Amino acid sequence: MQSSVQLTASGKLKHFLTVSGLSKELLTEILDTADSLIEVGERNIKKVPLLRGKTVVNLFFEASTRTRSTFELAAKRLSADVLNININTSATSKGESLSDMLKNLEAMASDMFVVRHAQSGASHFIAESVTPGVAIVNAGDGWHAHPTQAMLDMLTIRQNKGQFEGLKVAIIGDILHSRVARSQIRALNTLGVNEVRVIAPNTLLPKHVESLGVSVFNDINAGLGDIDVIIMLRLQRERMQGALLPSEGEYYQLFGLTRERLKLAKPDAIVMHPGPINRGVEIESEVADGDQSVILDQVTNGIAVRMAVMSMAMSGQTEEQNILNEKRANESECIS
Amino acid sequence: MQSSVQLTASGKLKHFLTVSGLSKELLTEILDTADSLIEVGERNIKKVPLLRGKTVVNLFFEASTRTRSTFELAAKRLSADVLNININTSATSKGESLSDMLKNLEAMASDMFVVRHAQSGASHFIAESVTPGVAIVNAGDGWHAHPTQAMLDMLTIRQNKGQFEGLKVAIIGDILHSRVARSQIRALNTLGVNEVRVIAPNTLLPKHVESLGVSVFNDINAGLGDIDVIIMLRLQRERMQGALLPSEGEYYQLFGLTRERLKLAKPDAIVMHPGPINRGVEIESEVADGDQSVILDQVTNGIAVRMAVMSMAMSGQTEEQNILNEKRANESECIS
Amino acid sequence: MQSSVQLTASGKLKHFLTVSGLSKELLTEILDTADSLIEVGERNIKKVPLLRGKTVVNLFFEASTRTRSTFELAAKRLSADVLNININTSATSKGESLSDMLKNLEAMASDMFVVRHAQSGASHFIAESVTPGVAIVNAGDGWHAHPTQAMLDMLTIRQNKGQFEGLKVAIIGDILHSRVARSQIRALNTLGVNEVRVIAPNTLLPKHVESLGVSVFNDINAGLGDIDVIIMLRLQRERMQGALLPSEGEYYQLFGLTRERLKLAKPDAIVMHPGPINRGVEIESEVADGDQSVILDQVTNGIAVRMAVMSMAMSGQTEEQNILNEKRANESECIS
Repeated sequence: MQSSVQLTASGKLKHFLTVSGLSKELLTEILDTADSLIEVGERNIKKVPLLRGKTVVNLFFEASTRTRSTFELAAKRLSADVLNININTSATSKGESLSDMLKNLEAMASDMFVVRHAQSGASHFIAESVTPGVAIVNAGDGWHAHPTQAMLDMLTIRQNKGQFEGLKVAIIGDILHSRVARSQIRALNTLGVNEVRVIAPNTLLPKHVESLGVSVFNDINAGLGDIDVIIMLRLQRERMQGALLPSEGEYYQLFGLTRERLKLAKPDAIVMHPGPINRGVEIESEVADGDQSVILDQVTNGIAVRMAVMSMAMSGQTEEQNILNEKRANESECIS
Repeated sequence: MQSSVQLTASGKLKHFLTVSGLSKELLTEILDTADSLIEVGERNIKKVPLLRGKTVVNLFFEASTRTRSTFELAAKRLSADVLNININTSATSKGESLSDMLKNLEAMASDMFVVRHAQSGASHFIAESVTPGVAIVNAGDGWHAHPTQAMLDMLTIRQNKGQFEGLKVAIIGDILHSRVARSQIRALNTLGVNEVRVIAPNTLLPKHVESLGVSVFNDINAGLGDIDVIIMLRLQRERMQGALLPSEGEYYQLFGLTRERLKLAKPDAIVMHPGPINRGVEIESEVADGDQSVILDQVTNGIAVRMAVMSMAMSGQTEEQNILNEKRANESECIS
Repeated sequence: MQSSVQLTASGKLKHFLTVSGLSKELLTEILDTADSLIEVGERNIKKVPLLRGKTVVNLFFEASTRTRSTFELAAKRLSADVLNININTSATSKGESLSDMLKNLEAMASDMFVVRHAQSGASHFIAESVTPGVAIVNAGDGWHAHPTQAMLDMLTIRQNKGQFEGLKVAIIGDILHSRVARSQIRALNTLGVNEVRVIAPNTLLPKHVESLGVSVFNDINAGLGDIDVIIMLRLQRERMQGALLPSEGEYYQLFGLTRERLKLAKPDAIVMHPGPINRGVEIESEVADGDQSVILDQVTNGIAVRMAVMSMAMSGQTEEQNILNEKRANESECIS
C-alpha cells in the first residue's frame, strides 16, 4: 500500500494511515512529539491549544468504545471540538453513499476524520479523495489493527530501553491475522532494532514471513532466549472456531507467557500487550500485572501518540494549505 | 400556524420555529448574520464566544445523525456546552410525561432546546409552554423538514445571485409531502423573487397549491424555461409503496434533472438539493457533481444559518429577560 | 458500609460514595459549596474553571439519560472534559474484566469516574482499588438511589426552611426498597432535625426501621400532623407485580399525597419528590405543581450539589497528592 498520500511535498505528515514507508526520521519525530505530550497528561490542567477551534470527527464504521475513547480524549486535550459519528445509525441507512456522506462532513468545515472501518484500506481510500486541508487518521481497519498502536508500542520500548539499536524483540501470537504485527515489524526494523523474532505455530504465521525481515520460532522457549522486549498479541477467540488453533488450554500450554517462561528472556525484558488481555489464554495474570509488564504504560502512551499524530497531521495540512494559498497569491499577482 | 410566539415585543427573534410570518427585514437579518458567520468556518480557529457558557440541549425525539451533527457543530463553534438527548432511551420510558421532562431540563438551567420531533407543531407547542429565557429552535417536525433548511437555501441563492429580485425559481418534486417546500415558497415570496414555479405530477401537489403564490407545471421541460434557481426535493422512497408514484425509473424519466434538461434553464442557473441525494432517481449524478451544482455550499451554509438563528434567538431571549428584570427593579423601587 | 475510604487523612472529601458516616460539618460544607455554585447556573456565562483540564468519565453500567445528563452538565459547567462510556457496548463484551477496564481508563489519565452500577457497593469497590489521585462519585447503585439525591434534598430543605433544627420531616412511600430514604434519614438526623417520620404500609418498611432513628406511621393522615417537610418517594411500578402492594388505585387512596391531605401538614410545609413523578399514583397532579411543591428546585439544586461534590472530591485528591509528593521530595532529600 502506498504511503506517499500521507506526506506533504516536503515530507511532513499530513495524514496518518500506516507506518509503512515512513522514514526513521519521521517515526522518531512522532515519538519525540509524543514524548513531549506525555507531560500534558501529568499536568494539573491537561490541555494544550494545538487543535483549538478545529473540528475532529470520529467516524466509526464499527463500534469500538475503547479506541473511540482514546481518540476523543486525545482530541479534547488538544482543545479540539469533537463530533462522534457512528455510521450504523447515520444517513447511509437512507441510501446515501459513503462518498456523499464524507463530502457533506467536509462541507461542514471538518478538519480531521478519525476513521475506523472493518475494510482494509478504507482510510487510504478516504485520504485519496478527501478535500485538501482535511487530515485523515487511521483508527483501525482490516483486522482491528491501527498504526497508532504500533507507534505507542515503539514509544513504550524507547521509554524503557532508551534506544532501538541492539535490541532483540519477540512478537508472540497470531501474526497471520494481525496487521499491527506487520506494522510493528516494519517500524522496529526502520528504527534499527537488532533482531525481530516472531513466535507462533505455523498455522498462525503468514507464508514467507521471513521476507518481512524476521526470524521465525515455533517454540516459545527457544524464541525467548536473550530477548529485551516481548510483544504479546491478543488471541482473537473467534479464530478458535476454525481449524487454525487447538483449544485455549492447549494454546496457553504451548504459547502462553508464564512466569516460568519469562525467565528465559533477559532479566530486564519488558512485557507488552495491546489489550484487552485474555488472562490465562495468551498471558498469565501474574505476568500481566508483574514488574516487567508495561501494559498500562502503553495505554498512557497511546493518548500521547494519538495527540502527536493528530497535531502533526493538522500542522502538515495547514502548511500545505499556506503554500498553496501563497502560490495562488503569487500567480494572481503575476497576472495582474 | 402562528409565528408571533417566536418574536419579542420589539420584533426580534427569540425562538426559531418557522419562516412563516417573518418579515423580509428579519429574514434578511438572519441571512446577513449567517453571512458574517460563514467566515468563522474558514478561520484557523473556528470559534466565536456568542454562546459561551450557555447550555444547548439537542432534544431529538427521532434519530437524525445528519441534522444533530450540524446543530452540534454550530453550537460548539458558538462555544456553547452541548448535551445530546435521544428521547427513545430517556426517562419517558419510565412513564414521565414530555412536559415533566422539559420542566426538568429547564430547571437544570438549559438555555436552548434544539427540537426534532416527528409530530408537526411539536416545537411550537414547546415554545408556548417553555420557561421564559429558554430559546427553542426547530430542527424538523412533520415530514422531516426544518426551517433552517429553507434559510440555508435562501442564503445559497443570495450568495450566487446577489439578490432575490427578478429571479425565477423552480421547486421540483414531492411538494405534497414536503413542509420545506412550503417554507421555501413563503421565504422566496417574502424576499421578493419574481416567480416561483412548482414542478411535479399532480399526485405530488397539494390541492389549491396556486394559492401559495406559485405557478404550476406538470411538465419539467416546460417548467425549466428561463429559470435561475432549481431546487430539487428528495424523493422519499417510502412514497413509492402507495399509489402516488410510478416506479423510480419512470419518475426519473419524467422528473429527474438530467444534463439535457438542465440546458433548458438559464445557462447560469444553479442546482440545489437538501441531501441526501438519490442519484439516478431525482437527479443525474453528473448534474449533482457538476459546475452548476451548489449542493455542498448548501451544507456549509447550513452551519452558518444554524449558528445565526441560535445566536439571534439567544440574544432575543436575553434582551427580553433584561427588560423584564429592569421592569421588576423599577416596580420594586416604586414600592419601596 | 465503611465511609473512611471517601475521606483524606485530614478528613476532607476525596470520593463521594455515601452520606453515611459523614460529619455534620462535612455535610454542611457540601451544602455551603453547592449554595455558592447555584449562582453559576444563574449567570450569563454558566462556567467556572474548577475542573478545567480535568477528565471526567461517566461510567454507566446501566443506562440513565436523566442522571447522566445532570452529571454531564455539572462537569461541563466546571469546565471539565467529559467522556461518556456506556459499558454495555464497551470492551467488557470482548471479555475484559471490570478491573482491567478501569486500570485502562486510569492509565488514560482520567481524573474522576462518575459511576452508576446496578450492584450495591460497586462504587465503594472501585474507590478502594482505584489509583490514588482519581476521584469516584457514586451516581447510583443498588435500588437506583444516589447520595447526591440525598444532598440535593438537604439543600432544598435548608433553602426553604433556613435550618434543620426544630424541623419535622416525613418520608412517604416505599422505604423498604429505597436506599435514598436511608441516606436521607441519616443525613437529616446528622444535620439535627427534630423528628423524622416514615409513612408507609408495613409491607414497604424494613424490619426494625425504628433503629434508624425514626418514628413509624402506617396512617398518612396521622403522620402528616405538624410536618414541615414532606419527602415523597417514587413508587417503582415493578413492585406491583409482587404481593407487596395492592393496586395503584388503592395505593393512591391510602398513601397518595392529595390536596386534602396536604392540609394536615403545617401550612408552610414543602413537598419534595425525586422524580420522575407518577402523577395520580403517589402524588396528586395539583400538589406536584402547587405552591408548596419545590420539586423543580430540587432539580436545579441537583446540578449545584453535583458540582459541589465533584469539585470537593477533586480538591481532596489534589491535596492528598500534593502531600504525598512533598513527603517523597523530603524523603529523597534526606537520602541525598
